[in-house]
Amino acid sequence: MNQLLLKRKLEEFILEDVGEGDVTTESLLVSGEYRCANIVAKEGGVLAGSDVIIAGYEVINSDITVELFKRDGESFEKGEVLATVSGTVKDLLAGERVILNLLQRMSGIATMAKRAKSVLNDESIRICDTRKTTPGLRMFEKYAVRCGGAYNHRRSLSDAVLLKENHLLASGGVKKAVEAVRERIGHMVKVEVETTNEHEVLEAIAADVDVIMFDNATPKEVKAYQQLVPGHIVTEASGGINLNTLAEYAGCGCHYISLGCLTHSVQSTDISFLLIEEEQR
Amino acid sequence: MNQLLLKRKLEEFILEDVGEGDVTTESLLVSGEYRCANIVAKEGGVLAGSDVIIAGYEVINSDITVELFKRDGESFEKGEVLATVSGTVKDLLAGERVILNLLQRMSGIATMAKRAKSVLNDESIRICDTRKTTPGLRMFEKYAVRCGGAYNHRRSLSDAVLLKENHLLASGGVKKAVEAVRERIGHMVKVEVETTNEHEVLEAIAADVDVIMFDNATPKEVKAYQQLVPGHIVTEASGGINLNTLAEYAGCGCHYISLGCLTHSVQSTDISFLLIEEEQR
Amino acid sequence: MNQLLLKRKLEEFILEDVGEGDVTTESLLVSGEYRCANIVAKEGGVLAGSDVIIAGYEVINSDITVELFKRDGESFEKGEVLATVSGTVKDLLAGERVILNLLQRMSGIATMAKRAKSVLNDESIRICDTRKTTPGLRMFEKYAVRCGGAYNHRRSLSDAVLLKENHLLASGGVKKAVEAVRERIGHMVKVEVETTNEHEVLEAIAADVDVIMFDNATPKEVKAYQQLVPGHIVTEASGGINLNTLAEYAGCGCHYISLGCLTHSVQSTDISFLLIEEEQR
Amino acid sequence: MNQLLLKRKLEEFILEDVGEGDVTTESLLVSGEYRCANIVAKEGGVLAGSDVIIAGYEVINSDITVELFKRDGESFEKGEVLATVSGTVKDLLAGERVILNLLQRMSGIATMAKRAKSVLNDESIRICDTRKTTPGLRMFEKYAVRCGGAYNHRRSLSDAVLLKENHLLASGGVKKAVEAVRERIGHMVKVEVETTNEHEVLEAIAADVDVIMFDNATPKEVKAYQQLVPGHIVTEASGGINLNTLAEYAGCGCHYISLGCLTHSVQSTDISFLLIEEEQR
Amino acid sequence: MNQLLLKRKLEEFILEDVGEGDVTTESLLVSGEYRCANIVAKEGGVLAGSDVIIAGYEVINSDITVELFKRDGESFEKGEVLATVSGTVKDLLAGERVILNLLQRMSGIATMAKRAKSVLNDESIRICDTRKTTPGLRMFEKYAVRCGGAYNHRRSLSDAVLLKENHLLASGGVKKAVEAVRERIGHMVKVEVETTNEHEVLEAIAADVDVIMFDNATPKEVKAYQQLVPGHIVTEASGGINLNTLAEYAGCGCHYISLGCLTHSVQSTDISFLLIEEEQR
Amino acid sequence: MNQLLLKRKLEEFILEDVGEGDVTTESLLVSGEYRCANIVAKEGGVLAGSDVIIAGYEVINSDITVELFKRDGESFEKGEVLATVSGTVKDLLAGERVILNLLQRMSGIATMAKRAKSVLNDESIRICDTRKTTPGLRMFEKYAVRCGGAYNHRRSLSDAVLLKENHLLASGGVKKAVEAVRERIGHMVKVEVETTNEHEVLEAIAADVDVIMFDNATPKEVKAYQQLVPGHIVTEASGGINLNTLAEYAGCGCHYISLGCLTHSVQSTDISFLLIEEEQR
Repeated sequence: MNQLLLKRKLEEFILEDVGEGDVTTESLLVSGEYRCANIVAKEGGVLAGSDVIIAGYEVINSDITVELFKRDGESFEKGEVLATVSGTVKDLLAGERVILNLLQRMSGIATMAKRAKSVLNDESIRICDTRKTTPGLRMFEKYAVRCGGAYNHRRSLSDAVLLKENHLLASGGVKKAVEAVRERIGHMVKVEVETTNEHEVLEAIAADVDVIMFDNATPKEVKAYQQLVPGHIVTEASGGINLNTLAEYAGCGCHYISLGCLTHSVQSTDISFLLIEEEQR
Repeated sequence: MNQLLLKRKLEEFILEDVGEGDVTTESLLVSGEYRCANIVAKEGGVLAGSDVIIAGYEVINSDITVELFKRDGESFEKGEVLATVSGTVKDLLAGERVILNLLQRMSGIATMAKRAKSVLNDESIRICDTRKTTPGLRMFEKYAVRCGGAYNHRRSLSDAVLLKENHLLASGGVKKAVEAVRERIGHMVKVEVETTNEHEVLEAIAADVDVIMFDNATPKEVKAYQQLVPGHIVTEASGGINLNTLAEYAGCGCHYISLGCLTHSVQSTDISFLLIEEEQR
Repeated sequence: MNQLLLKRKLEEFILEDVGEGDVTTESLLVSGEYRCANIVAKEGGVLAGSDVIIAGYEVINSDITVELFKRDGESFEKGEVLATVSGTVKDLLAGERVILNLLQRMSGIATMAKRAKSVLNDESIRICDTRKTTPGLRMFEKYAVRCGGAYNHRRSLSDAVLLKENHLLASGGVKKAVEAVRERIGHMVKVEVETTNEHEVLEAIAADVDVIMFDNATPKEVKAYQQLVPGHIVTEASGGINLNTLAEYAGCGCHYISLGCLTHSVQSTDISFLLIEEEQR
Repeated sequence: MNQLLLKRKLEEFILEDVGEGDVTTESLLVSGEYRCANIVAKEGGVLAGSDVIIAGYEVINSDITVELFKRDGESFEKGEVLATVSGTVKDLLAGERVILNLLQRMSGIATMAKRAKSVLNDESIRICDTRKTTPGLRMFEKYAVRCGGAYNHRRSLSDAVLLKENHLLASGGVKKAVEAVRERIGHMVKVEVETTNEHEVLEAIAADVDVIMFDNATPKEVKAYQQLVPGHIVTEASGGINLNTLAEYAGCGCHYISLGCLTHSVQSTDISFLLIEEEQR
Repeated sequence: MNQLLLKRKLEEFILEDVGEGDVTTESLLVSGEYRCANIVAKEGGVLAGSDVIIAGYEVINSDITVELFKRDGESFEKGEVLATVSGTVKDLLAGERVILNLLQRMSGIATMAKRAKSVLNDESIRICDTRKTTPGLRMFEKYAVRCGGAYNHRRSLSDAVLLKENHLLASGGVKKAVEAVRERIGHMVKVEVETTNEHEVLEAIAADVDVIMFDNATPKEVKAYQQLVPGHIVTEASGGINLNTLAEYAGCGCHYISLGCLTHSVQSTDISFLLIEEEQR
Repeated sequence: MNQLLLKRKLEEFILEDVGEGDVTTESLLVSGEYRCANIVAKEGGVLAGSDVIIAGYEVINSDITVELFKRDGESFEKGEVLATVSGTVKDLLAGERVILNLLQRMSGIATMAKRAKSVLNDESIRICDTRKTTPGLRMFEKYAVRCGGAYNHRRSLSDAVLLKENHLLASGGVKKAVEAVRERIGHMVKVEVETTNEHEVLEAIAADVDVIMFDNATPKEVKAYQQLVPGHIVTEASGGINLNTLAEYAGCGCHYISLGCLTHSVQSTDISFLLIEEEQR
């Protein structure tokens, strides 16, 4: 993740949560007291977002110290302490909620990504994400997907060409669309075409695109299409696949399977923030 | 929702998704063609976020027209057309992903809130949310909670006082903490105290706070505590309650039950965006 | 005050004052010389804004040191040194004007708030502010009001409900308006109703609102209305009261008196910034 | 005023006041109803800020119409309607407070500026402002000063050179400082020197600066200094002059008198916002 | 170009140029008068930036009308009118300088790109840009490159992998670096390797990268390397090539030649803005 | 340069270049390794922008150290090391491109400014810039002009009055325009008038403006006009003068010559960034 962008976004998020000031802690004047707090897993999962703890507290007060006990991408068990932070109670509480909200969501995504790999149980196929991310959190969620051992599809509409049905219709079919695109884009941009039947797959092969997407195809269809595709073209099964149906795609031969649910329907991993009784500094 | 803030946030989200330009549509030069598109439910749910469709397209191009067929808070069935938008293909596609991502998440929240009400099946208890919202989306998610018939807890740390265990420890107990807070806050701010046992409940009653939270209490405990509390103090059961355990709290007598899962573990409602074949304008 | 928001706003203010660079100091190349400067009261008052000195100079250059001799809320006499800052002359001058402008205004507010308490001379009534704050400075001014020993009314339209004449007219009277509001808001939001005669006071009491405002009421009217109101409802006298008329409200029995002049018609406290001759570092 | 900057600042101010949404009007659902409102003077004064009404409502909803009955710089009497606005009640109330807060402050400044001219009662001397403006509002306040018939000193540290005591000390006196500055600045920047005694006035004359400031000089001193200054050098009396002492400076012969109080100690002009009973559109 | 980003950037640029207001036109009060102005080429070239005229004036005042006589990518002769704009004199002058500054720079780039194609005179080789763009103007300059008939290299460090010498050294050579990268990136990202001799070219071929860059290679070296590279790998000559040396690369057989000078050493095309005497509206 | 504004702009520029993260270095995980890099001149020139190196790396990571070997305004030869920076490879590469892009452009401007002085070869005439700067970079470019020994014309439309043909036409000639302006502006703002013939020069003299511009005048015309102008009025030759024609203006007697090409048609100075092989920290 871009550290500058990370801090800038964390500032926005903390401002959203704290508003003009924490009326509770400000009224109790607890600002002076130093304390430690543990960030503890309340269920097992895969960690993503340790940079959020570090950068989040740096944004609040650079005197806060953060010690990490797990690295992004590592698994943890229920009860494990993921990190310890120390600073004034007021500062610690100012960041608690935002940092947990992100850490829980990111770890939920990494955990789901890892589970997806295990459900699929086919090392020859990579799991990837989509653009169905939470608005404002794309960088965080794409990073969490990687922490879980899965891969990123394009980051934005600027990065890569994906010719969908609408584009093909508007430009007279695969051949013409790919030609038109290649006339304008440079050599650092990949071209993917969405296909929904064998005819379109053959057209995409004829146009020698970089990537062919099999949209809403059954495992059986994917297998059949895959046999038509020459080895240097990458293939991706996409559309309506989720953790319930993913296992059926094992052995289907495509290179990537994209899952929207990785980012649009995540269960946050339960992680809590516990101030330690005795003062430690 | 504050319409100014809504537009400002939508601008950020669209910039995140579009980057410096949509390399696909720009290469195909489809900008000139006018079309209509339907926003269609692919499963049933409760609508939240129609303002996102309107403001999102206004941000892109004020010439785009939006016709809504459902209002926020209304239920819809699989297959129903929720809205129709018309404009150039390029403009329609520029907003599609961000608008759907928000609409799906917000409707997912409204749908879950409504389901929670039905699971609880006790009209005397209100469901409410927490601060466990997605960073950057608090306004959207709190609004969606209301669309589903549930209620909002405080919006930020600036709005209301919530004395948690850490605050009570740091300030010498409920009585002293409440006194200290009341010495400093004005008459437009509510004071809630988190309690974990009967002793603390009695202390909170003695301090005559506005709201008492029963934290991590079983339905039986809630029922017992509630009988101690005078009628003018509002009560809230909170902590670890989810759709699986919610039904057990029916009849427990408290006024509010807060659910973190309403915003931190949402399943997006499946909604799609379909360009209509024939040009309609 | 939220320290993040404080620094962000100070950055804006310093950019406004410095523009693309201080053409005077840049032309004289005085950047290298270290000096101390005293921030000195040129008349007596109550301090508010010491955080502005610290955060303002941190924004300019974290090497600048600030030593404070008074705390916010403390009184000072003419001639007292409130703080000493040290750094390069160029850095010190870069922040001087903005920091003084804020400090003088905030201390002016705190001083007026304290004076108001003394004019009223009735410890049973609290003075509070309104939303008539300087645009962009609400956080600063509400904080200064607290430094002067007075209290804050709501911070923004999002925090609390205040049903004014226009709202009551539009929704069919106090009873209907309060019911409509309660149907939608949660348990962390207070409801205040503006009343202009005895009939409306009685309606507000019947609706059991949290706060009743007596708008533009004479001391005598306040006293009469107050006797109708049950003890658990907070009351506020508001509208057209200023330092000339405030004393007449002593003994009127209401809980709060709100003063718009606290923030809209402030006399800045005269505070100056004096570089100390001899170099001290 | 720069209209782009004006709208951008009004957006910030409205966001500050409205927060995530007006919980009162949103709960009462009054959004649909069209109404007119009058902006009415509750005391006499000089208008400044009519652009704030127009741009403020354009920022909220471009469907709102604004009709102005006075122009900036014109005087008004108590009871005069300054403007009429029409739109939905919700939109009208969304802008009311911020627009009034600015309009009252700006008109307060214009009114004070005009009063200052009348107090001074010497058409040969122009009144001007200083950099003692409210942080974030410099553009608004400098504009209001002009509406009252007074003049602006420099806008920021980038615009013009003002050599104060600190600069002179640091660079070896007036002659050296002016030479050093002239070596580096171009022909579009004015150079002013602050003087505190006759010796310094003579030095400034010798250096042929554009403007000489007589700092903290009595009327008598100003008169004496002025006689030393050749006709092509502009002079300014500054420092500690206010509406109580201003009249004494009549006839002192300098060209400008700068008054910090014009912007740092303003009494807002009382202006109110009244919804008109009957619907008018 | 992303229209939202375009407008946002134009706002920044206009604020930079206009500051708090145009002191000249504001003093002359010419705001009310409607006029037309022609944007006229004072030398021949290739147009790029017509969207800047449209969006720039929309940002200033949506009532201004813009009529374009040339489209981006078209050539124009000295004296041709490129566009006519109409609005108030004040509004027209508010945008003049910023719009011309951009239009001249962008057209300068497009003109240079077209000249480069003509100098190279080899249709089988495409000219492309680099990341050596003016900070803040990347979107504008990459667009202008396309208007001139050339192509874009990657937009940012997020888009595509380019393994330079430093990366190869740090990761143990081409093979290991490419493997490490492929282990982590998805299927929508291209991988390019910089090579400086035949050995490295062969390594890159063995790693089957998407693109091979011949860095600082003479035309003769490019020709030799090219013969080693299989047809499906794209090649790019880069480093120190400019309009003086470009012609020597004709016939060298590579696919792309990148030119930093396209964006870092541009001669603005001379274009002027002429108000038309007689009022036309 | 204003250091706050400098850092804020550098943040924007780095975000533009890095996007959501450097996909190359992040994939190779080279973050941990410390290295030094030299910033080396690949051709001779005049340095401008050393603050960009310092502030740019401070924005990325305050642990990076920067050692400068040349100061702004000093000349350097091909091969000279201008600065050495040390930090992690990842951090060094994150800033490389943006810092070089600015440094090269700014040094290109300083170098051209110095060359212009030498071409003109008349110490009695100062070279100055115009508002034809790159949008977003005005502060950087005006600073670079000063580094090259030339001078700045006004920074923005807010700073100074420049009455051009359009203004004169719209307000009835020089006399009326100058009177109208003087009626409204204060004593810290200079007034310049653009003239195109002897008649207008005489009018400007009669109006006793601060600066007279001879627009598009030949050296001979400038010489003739200059003899009409009294000594206290500054003169400026402007319009269409470039490095090819500049020498002809030597001895023409005016005070300033403004050159648009200083900022609109700059050749970047070639400067490179070289990681040093052996680890040094």
